[in-house]
Amino acid sequence: MNSCQLPIDPSQCVTLAHGGGGRLTDRLVREIFAPAFGLDRALLNDGAEPGNEGWVITTDAHVVHPLIFPGGDIGCLAAHGTCNDLAMAGAAPAWLAVSWILEEGVSIGLVRRVAESLAAGARMSGAKVVAGDTKVVERGKGDGIFLQSCGFGKRMCAQAPGPWRLAPGQVLVVSGDIARHGAAIMSARGGGLGFTGDITSDCGPLWPSVRALFEAGIEPLAMRDCTRGGLATVLAEWAEGSGVGLVVEEAEIPVQEAVRGACEVLGLDPLYVACEGRFVAAVEAGQAEASVAVLRGLAGGEEARVIGEVSGVYAGRAVASQAYGTQRVLDRLAGEALPRIC
Amino acid sequence: MNSCQLPIDPSQCVTLAHGGGGRLTDRLVREIFAPAFGLDRALLNDGAEPGNEGWVITTDAHVVHPLIFPGGDIGCLAAHGTCNDLAMAGAAPAWLAVSWILEEGVSIGLVRRVAESLAAGARMSGAKVVAGDTKVVERGKGDGIFLQSCGFGKRMCAQAPGPWRLAPGQVLVVSGDIARHGAAIMSARGGGLGFTGDITSDCGPLWPSVRALFEAGIEPLAMRDCTRGGLATVLAEWAEGSGVGLVVEEAEIPVQEAVRGACEVLGLDPLYVACEGRFVAAVEAGQAEASVAVLRGLAGGEEARVIGEVSGVYAGRAVASQAYGTQRVLDRLAGEALPRIC
Repeated sequence: MNSCQLPIDPSQCVTLAHGGGGRLTDRLVREIFAPAFGLDRALLNDGAEPGNEGWVITTDAHVVHPLIFPGGDIGCLAAHGTCNDLAMAGAAPAWLAVSWILEEGVSIGLVRRVAESLAAGARMSGAKVVAGDTKVVERGKGDGIFLQSCGFGKRMCAQAPGPWRLAPGQVLVVSGDIARHGAAIMSARGGGLGFTGDITSDCGPLWPSVRALFEAGIEPLAMRDCTRGGLATVLAEWAEGSGVGLVVEEAEIPVQEAVRGACEVLGLDPLYVACEGRFVAAVEAGQAEASVAVLRGLAGGEEARVIGEVSGVYAGRAVASQAYGTQRVLDRLAGEALPRIC
Repeated sequence: MNSCQLPIDPSQCVTLAHGGGGRLTDRLVREIFAPAFGLDRALLNDGAEPGNEGWVITTDAHVVHPLIFPGGDIGCLAAHGTCNDLAMAGAAPAWLAVSWILEEGVSIGLVRRVAESLAAGARMSGAKVVAGDTKVVERGKGDGIFLQSCGFGKRMCAQAPGPWRLAPGQVLVVSGDIARHGAAIMSARGGGLGFTGDITSDCGPLWPSVRALFEAGIEPLAMRDCTRGGLATVLAEWAEGSGVGLVVEEAEIPVQEAVRGACEVLGLDPLYVACEGRFVAAVEAGQAEASVAVLRGLAGGEEARVIGEVSGVYAGRAVASQAYGTQRVLDRLAGEALPRIC
């Protein structure tokens, strides 16, 4: 039993890694929130569907730093992050509710810019901001703007997609090149590293892609946007949660050259770096080519491709096949690679 | 034109008063958020009902300081605050989505306590936490725990209650003694003032009271919980928004002796001090006595009573009649009396 498997000691303190979307976040959910709220962790997805009318609910807190980054800001990030979680549950985004925690001293012009960016982002997924709340904390008790958004949408596919539907023979498709959001944030923070401006975030809406798949008669078995922890974390969670094996060809995973270079400089593995407008889907083998064709027809989807498959071996593990026939296991992150990425 | 009526200068900065629920909060909503999101400020209520299926949505950010106070903590405050907004729209609380912004270093035991308190509070209104998200910010970029909650509920009355339904002849009823939450927070902050421990927050669920009114065949025309800005701010907003006059008898408004004393020491007017488990309702005159009887039958409602009426005079104004026949206008707060009360 390694330290990550020991129960959480309540006298322990929260670390940045508890917000990283990796093992410690999972333990916080599994050991504190799921028992308190009477939820089954195994069934927790990014979007909950609590009733029997097809309504899906999701929520996100956004604490990205800096507030404005190449390709977006905290406003469109909140809109896309929340609408994308609905899309990943097969739901058409309808309504958003947004809460602001402003730090005393932040400029009202910045608040206006973020609000307009949020509204524009929501419109790209067909959603509308309908409710809100604003709180202000003293200087030094916040960090400019924290933005929390909650989304409501209606499921538009016959059956909810989820990792419990993964089965050997299905094919894994990625909707575009990965790791740009995380790389853009890091480049915005470390201007001196020489790659600032070359990389823009992939922050964008996924509902148009999912809707196009549905319209083409394709209903993915499972979908997940590759946010905190990146593509590798999604695959590791799916494999662990469902018991199937997932095998991807590392050479097939699209990564921009500039992003690959930045990751090398920073010592990061692109497979673990966050996207905010890319997803991985499992589809029936016979629909793989059609899925890629649909995704490539949409803005941002030019690099969509098949990257692997659900396997009958490697049960419960996600594995990346590399050049020269070697393989590596994609485990979940134990620590925090990129704090405050979203 | 006084300074509060000048348009917001985008180069201006956010102040604590922008989060106080008074005039500056209103201007932020009216001049920044409502235009950005395409909302009609005049129709904004605490709960939005965007579709045609009777679903009501509401959201709140919670930044209360201290996190634990006499009578509650940030967890039950979030649960009640959100469920109460649904209840005020005549909706039965069903589902909550909760986002956490934790400051690095906060104890996991405290997070657990708050989660359990939140779940217990939700259950008191028949709601269940179904979705969540957790982010962590560096030490010094937050303040322990910020908690955002979003609620989803179904309207259980024939017509949505709202200030637009106010009309002369209706009677104003308050559901219990006011100002305890704000006084409890201030006493928790200023232990040296000598009244610590005498006052507990009124933080509690309102849906049981609203449901009991519905079951008795009473559907209030307008309802609002008296949170930031207190009872006076609700009345001022209702009068200003609807154009009717509202007249209350100040001597009829129930305030605990200890609360009145604390407010005197602190130089606060109890009518402007927040409650978190009290509401004011406008009902038809013929239902006033029955309403009070229903409310008194519930825990916390022992002090429920008629406090005034909707008037054909004083158009657009809320007025408090005092002893000796004097009257004072209840205007909205221009500044911030009690920052981070909720």
